[in-house]
Amino acid sequence: MTNEWWTQPCASPDAASASAACARQRNLTKPPGSLGQLEDLAVRLASLQASECPKLERVWISVFAADHGVAEEGVSAFPQAVTGEMVRNFGTGGAAISVLARSLGATLDVVNLGTVNDPGEIPGVLRAVIAPSSGNLCHVPAMTRAQLETALGTGASRVEQALESGADLFIGGEMGIANTTVASALACALLDEGPGLLAGAGTGLDEAGVAHKAAVIARALQRHADATDALEQLRCLGGFEIAALTGAFIAAAQSRVPVLVDGFITTVAALAAVRINPGVRDWLLFAHRSQERGHARLLDALQARPLLDLGMRLGEASGAAVAVPLLRLACALHGGMATFAQAGVSTSTRAGV
Amino acid sequence: MTNEWWTQPCASPDAASASAACARQRNLTKPPGSLGQLEDLAVRLASLQASECPKLERVWISVFAADHGVAEEGVSAFPQAVTGEMVRNFGTGGAAISVLARSLGATLDVVNLGTVNDPGEIPGVLRAVIAPSSGNLCHVPAMTRAQLETALGTGASRVEQALESGADLFIGGEMGIANTTVASALACALLDEGPGLLAGAGTGLDEAGVAHKAAVIARALQRHADATDALEQLRCLGGFEIAALTGAFIAAAQSRVPVLVDGFITTVAALAAVRINPGVRDWLLFAHRSQERGHARLLDALQARPLLDLGMRLGEASGAAVAVPLLRLACALHGGMATFAQAGVSTSTRAGV
Repeated sequence: MTNEWWTQPCASPDAASASAACARQRNLTKPPGSLGQLEDLAVRLASLQASECPKLERVWISVFAADHGVAEEGVSAFPQAVTGEMVRNFGTGGAAISVLARSLGATLDVVNLGTVNDPGEIPGVLRAVIAPSSGNLCHVPAMTRAQLETALGTGASRVEQALESGADLFIGGEMGIANTTVASALACALLDEGPGLLAGAGTGLDEAGVAHKAAVIARALQRHADATDALEQLRCLGGFEIAALTGAFIAAAQSRVPVLVDGFITTVAALAAVRINPGVRDWLLFAHRSQERGHARLLDALQARPLLDLGMRLGEASGAAVAVPLLRLACALHGGMATFAQAGVSTSTRAGV
Repeated sequence: MTNEWWTQPCASPDAASASAACARQRNLTKPPGSLGQLEDLAVRLASLQASECPKLERVWISVFAADHGVAEEGVSAFPQAVTGEMVRNFGTGGAAISVLARSLGATLDVVNLGTVNDPGEIPGVLRAVIAPSSGNLCHVPAMTRAQLETALGTGASRVEQALESGADLFIGGEMGIANTTVASALACALLDEGPGLLAGAGTGLDEAGVAHKAAVIARALQRHADATDALEQLRCLGGFEIAALTGAFIAAAQSRVPVLVDGFITTVAALAAVRINPGVRDWLLFAHRSQERGHARLLDALQARPLLDLGMRLGEASGAAVAVPLLRLACALHGGMATFAQAGVSTSTRAGV
């Protein structure tokens, strides 16, 4: 262990609040367990918020955008210019996550970490450019050590902002042409697996496209075979937005902010965060199973049971945003239902139910 | 076919609106298909609301409560008094569906069709008592023909009320001790199957309890083996709330009101409605896969692909209510996202994506 901030201990969930929440669930006017995962969610949130009755009013969504040198290998169905164009679309409110954040009354924090097609200053977008693009990981490390640390720190700074705004939940999202390639490469390294299971269609590759992408990933893995610890794997095979997400997740776990993880790319960042600092895992809730090949494998590696399985594969934090109402309803039910005693309702006649 | 109202034709979804909605989806700033089932939902709702951009502001939830003669066979983990107690709990706002309706800003319409433990007049509860209880289907038909028609008509009258209130969506729910037994029996008859696959734990039976329940269902099926059409099966093996749901679903399909189906019991009512009047199927959306054994089989029979799978098994329309935000977000994304042209975002460089 070094003394770097990302290795400092994470906070611990509050076991007493979890017990109190469990007891409360047993007394609510419904058969025990009949709200399924919504009951587990309420208890998890109780332990993370250290409150018998958790709440989820203020939701903070940071979307990190960045370009990737590996895009020059032709691994995406969309041109690289789209990253910068989408940053503008986030700012002007036309992207999926813009619409979702408005609908949820959530704060949308867009962070431009560097795009080849630079959109310049845009209202509503934080300009935190590290470089126009990461390095092409087939040939060089994706980031220098300084770039990695800047990206991790930028992620952490967004959690600090979320905390200052009183956020009850942190969501991280990403945008960056070619970033499923990068995420798959990093996942392969973290899980010590080949790209067969972990390279998928991304924004819409056909079978030949996926095969080419897997070959590119294999070259990158070969090039960086000497990167064996998670931080170095993140530096060599990651990207600015993935490192920022990793830093954000670690910082959230250190500062008692529950995290709702989105899809494939954010789950790779979550896995990197857990490998760097295992205490992070306690603070992660998982929103959905993405259609991107490889997400299921990652969720298994994290022993995660996501809430939704809607065939989504957009990124931008969209899957996490869609799951927010489930968390809110879980809290509302937990805090708002009457107990058997309050409502004068008879309890079960069977032992053990 | 008779001239009874429930055999009158259902409305047809609007194909032109569906086509327009599909075209709109292809132009929104995201990879085509990347919002998964949310895209399908928007298109389905467009066809049902005959509008390229559907909306889901006003949601109407009718919860039908009734008691069942078969409860005397000891098939529930809870005493029969709970049905009447829960009707009061719905009225005073302490039940799960009360909390969910408030959270969603939905109208909650509670209909008391008859309980052994009569709660009397309760503010916020419509008193539409048919009898204190249905008949014990091990010995007699659950309903007389007159009772069946009253129940069907009461269901239809709630859809009429929903329409008058400008509802964009109708949700039906139920409460009634022993009603998973009744629903399983009816499902067996409709699907021509034994109770092995279709009798489950309900509110919390153990294995011996489920075996006893299956034996009770087998006796009921034997007793009413001569009921071969769906309406007669509903009369003999159903119950007041299940018949009311059936009537409501048929009326909704006849009057262009989309329906969001809840869990096991409402899905049995939906299957009965489709068997009585096949055009009903077009108007049904399915909210979730319940933990109750048998629900998956019913969903297969209806070729339904539900949105959620959260291990819920409460009834009361709770699973449907929890899915409402997904429908709303699907509409918000569909109507609120920018197109590629509006946002100046480049489209895919690959053909066919």
